[in-house]
Amino acid sequence: MIRVKLLFITAIIIIANTLKANTVEQYSVHEIELKGPVSGNPFIDVKLSAEFRFLNRTVFCEGFYDGDGIYKIRFMPDIPGDWTYITKSNIKELDKKKGSFSCTAASGNNHGPVKVRNVYDFGYADGRPFYPVGTTCYAWVHQPDELVNQTLASLAKTRFNKIRMTVMPKDYDVYINNEPPFYPFEGSKEKGWDFNRPNPEFFRNFEKKILELQKLGIEADVILFHPYDNGHWNLDKMNREQAAFNLKYLIARIASIRNVWWSMANEYDILRKTDEEWEKYFRIIQESDPYQHLCSIHNGMEWYNHSKPWITHLSIQTAYLQDIQDWRELYNKPVIIDECVYEGNIPNDWGNLTAEEMMNRFWISYCRGAYCTHGETYIHPENILWWSKGGKLYGKSAERIGFLHKIMTETPAEGVYPFHNTWNKETYLIKEKEFYLYYYGNSQQAKARLYLPKDVKFRLEVIDAWNMTVTPVNGEFSGMTEIPLPGKPYIAVRAIKVK
Amino acid sequence: MIRVKLLFITAIIIIANTLKANTVEQYSVHEIELKGPVSGNPFIDVKLSAEFRFLNRTVFCEGFYDGDGIYKIRFMPDIPGDWTYITKSNIKELDKKKGSFSCTAASGNNHGPVKVRNVYDFGYADGRPFYPVGTTCYAWVHQPDELVNQTLASLAKTRFNKIRMTVMPKDYDVYINNEPPFYPFEGSKEKGWDFNRPNPEFFRNFEKKILELQKLGIEADVILFHPYDNGHWNLDKMNREQAAFNLKYLIARIASIRNVWWSMANEYDILRKTDEEWEKYFRIIQESDPYQHLCSIHNGMEWYNHSKPWITHLSIQTAYLQDIQDWRELYNKPVIIDECVYEGNIPNDWGNLTAEEMMNRFWISYCRGAYCTHGETYIHPENILWWSKGGKLYGKSAERIGFLHKIMTETPAEGVYPFHNTWNKETYLIKEKEFYLYYYGNSQQAKARLYLPKDVKFRLEVIDAWNMTVTPVNGEFSGMTEIPLPGKPYIAVRAIKVK
Repeated sequence: MIRVKLLFITAIIIIANTLKANTVEQYSVHEIELKGPVSGNPFIDVKLSAEFRFLNRTVFCEGFYDGDGIYKIRFMPDIPGDWTYITKSNIKELDKKKGSFSCTAASGNNHGPVKVRNVYDFGYADGRPFYPVGTTCYAWVHQPDELVNQTLASLAKTRFNKIRMTVMPKDYDVYINNEPPFYPFEGSKEKGWDFNRPNPEFFRNFEKKILELQKLGIEADVILFHPYDNGHWNLDKMNREQAAFNLKYLIARIASIRNVWWSMANEYDILRKTDEEWEKYFRIIQESDPYQHLCSIHNGMEWYNHSKPWITHLSIQTAYLQDIQDWRELYNKPVIIDECVYEGNIPNDWGNLTAEEMMNRFWISYCRGAYCTHGETYIHPENILWWSKGGKLYGKSAERIGFLHKIMTETPAEGVYPFHNTWNKETYLIKEKEFYLYYYGNSQQAKARLYLPKDVKFRLEVIDAWNMTVTPVNGEFSGMTEIPLPGKPYIAVRAIKVK
Repeated sequence: MIRVKLLFITAIIIIANTLKANTVEQYSVHEIELKGPVSGNPFIDVKLSAEFRFLNRTVFCEGFYDGDGIYKIRFMPDIPGDWTYITKSNIKELDKKKGSFSCTAASGNNHGPVKVRNVYDFGYADGRPFYPVGTTCYAWVHQPDELVNQTLASLAKTRFNKIRMTVMPKDYDVYINNEPPFYPFEGSKEKGWDFNRPNPEFFRNFEKKILELQKLGIEADVILFHPYDNGHWNLDKMNREQAAFNLKYLIARIASIRNVWWSMANEYDILRKTDEEWEKYFRIIQESDPYQHLCSIHNGMEWYNHSKPWITHLSIQTAYLQDIQDWRELYNKPVIIDECVYEGNIPNDWGNLTAEEMMNRFWISYCRGAYCTHGETYIHPENILWWSKGGKLYGKSAERIGFLHKIMTETPAEGVYPFHNTWNKETYLIKEKEFYLYYYGNSQQAKARLYLPKDVKFRLEVIDAWNMTVTPVNGEFSGMTEIPLPGKPYIAVRAIKVK
């Protein structure tokens, strides 16, 4: 009897384990692990993929070699229910492996990957709007653990929900030239790199960081190429074939992580690759990423042709924000001003905004129909600048950007568009007869003059973007309305239809 | 004996008077006054002009009817020496009148009319550079004497050396709708105007004001058309023929005043005239102004084609200054940002800059190779806003603009050009290996990093544009140089070659 009970309990444990192993939450990673050959160059020699099936759908997904004879296929199911798969490989022991798993509905803070929503905006796969307020810590994953943890702790205190970060380590000016904890390839900077042999440990570290961000609700805007190796490591000396292989390898490893975005390059034009080469890499993403994560490319001086179909949204570097409405209308895609100069005080012309101006540019971007990205570059005795290494935030804009994010979440999720006329001086969002958000930038007007619809009553609020206050104005308003303002910069007025 | 003496004295007095009457300083007005008919409409019916001769040169100059049977021809000789003239008229008593006068060399503050100098800049006829720092009091001449005198007293305390002002009175919003002391035509707003009968008193008042400005060293940027009659007077209801006649009449009256500039229109595009009509008026100026005063046209939303030959310089309305270098290079003409939003606190989007930002825009314009124009629009209990009526200056930018003007006069007069690259973030003037003026705008960099020539020694000065200080940096500098800055907005650094 005892024996029967034990057997029964054992059976339950086995079933539970099996269930556990065979259950994955929607938009999370289902990982298939297989043992395979270690001889030759398994990264290159072994082809492995799987077809995942749900009802009548089949999703093709590439696997990758994770070292030590371990092969993996990672898959992110996007719909709850029963999935099956079958592997495909040029190696018999990896081929035609079948399996199944059950996908449970997303729960908690899991809303799925972010996609374009309503042409100009963003939303999670489950329909929830996503209002990007990003920051920039290019090489934070390549810093020592202590600093990495400090970065994560700093991020946790903000409302930043997107971070620009490079796959490769970065060398720039006096600010960053330290060695990363891991290198992406076998070899060394002294002896040279074997670009056909990725270092799984490097990528495991990178993935771990993306998952840490996921816990914080932060999207990882993963920068695939950047022009700042500067001969320090020569990690940028891959030929096209090697670059293509490594791009596929990275996609196989991380595309299944829901908070991944692809940023093809930072300052792509400085890399002096041809359009044809960029197109090759974009097509690899199109062909290899089963989830079609958001995908963009960031400019230095010259813009990429953002009308190309693989570009999901504009990722713009510019200090000048007045033409955002034109860009929206030209490309019919969301616009993120991913670099508009950072808050800081370094001599470089890209890193010395006041906190006021950094915040101002977020508000201008938002009220012209785009989103903006933060970075911080205060001179630091140990050259730990947030923009490249992470660490602590010293500035005053992050908190104000958080306040703006709150304002964004209070804006109607549908039907809002930016005012746009040829004078191009005013900056405000409109939802006809329902909602208006006027932003007055660095002007100091002592009154707001609003041309509200005559047939709708509105309540008004004066928003102080810098002091992060929302002050209701007594009364209800229609038609041409004048209200007093504090007569200082960074004031907005919000008009909300009285229900 | 006494009688002989008296005769002698009388003779001297007569000679002196004749000499006085027949002597005029270079670039000043020599006026010929003739008696003629009063019947019919002398403004239209009587044609009067003169040919002025100096050595082998002949200058053609139109006369005008000044009322009460008085006809005048005004001429500004541009070279010292003996001039003769002969009149031409369809009226016998005005025809073939001959005379001569002597022109003496310019003296004191008389440097002649301002012209384009070195493609992108301005200079007086005598070669002295003119650095425009303008202001805007559109309708100041149409205000009561007391206010006019206050305006002149205010101007006298500044370094403003150009003023934008309209020929016609202006009606705009709540800010200006008062009656002018004189109307430009016979008639009334109630009964209508006779556009063929100018009111000489109106023009005498206008001329007097221009001469008052001349005493202060201020150029009168005379705006011929503007879109702000708003049905108040209907003074803008002239047909083309009437407009052409009145334009010629004005030119005959004031072209001989050396500090006149022609601004064809304020916000020309709002007037909705055809290009052909504007061209007609420009050609009248070209044909009728013997001195070819500076001539421009100011835009609202849409730009005029500034490459037309009658445009001497760009007169731009824009809030966005980053493309100035492109405009210079496109048109090869000087650029004046004649309206970039005014210092003030009114709700209108064109009138609520902080003093800091008004000053900042002057510095940006200058260090990108252009010039800027001031205006002030602080809410006033009696609606006396400087921008339209003149009066007192309440703001803080005028003094800082004066400081910038001093900096301008210290910049080398030849060979300076603005830095221009496709990044378009930096704002500075260069004279290769001699002089650099870096302006850091509203950034807060705590260091300046200068890439000075390696083979030249420079002394450096830190300029605080807001506090109007110039602080020398100890030492001499070459090559890549870093110096500390105050770490706050509105700082410039000047590098001057050590002699």
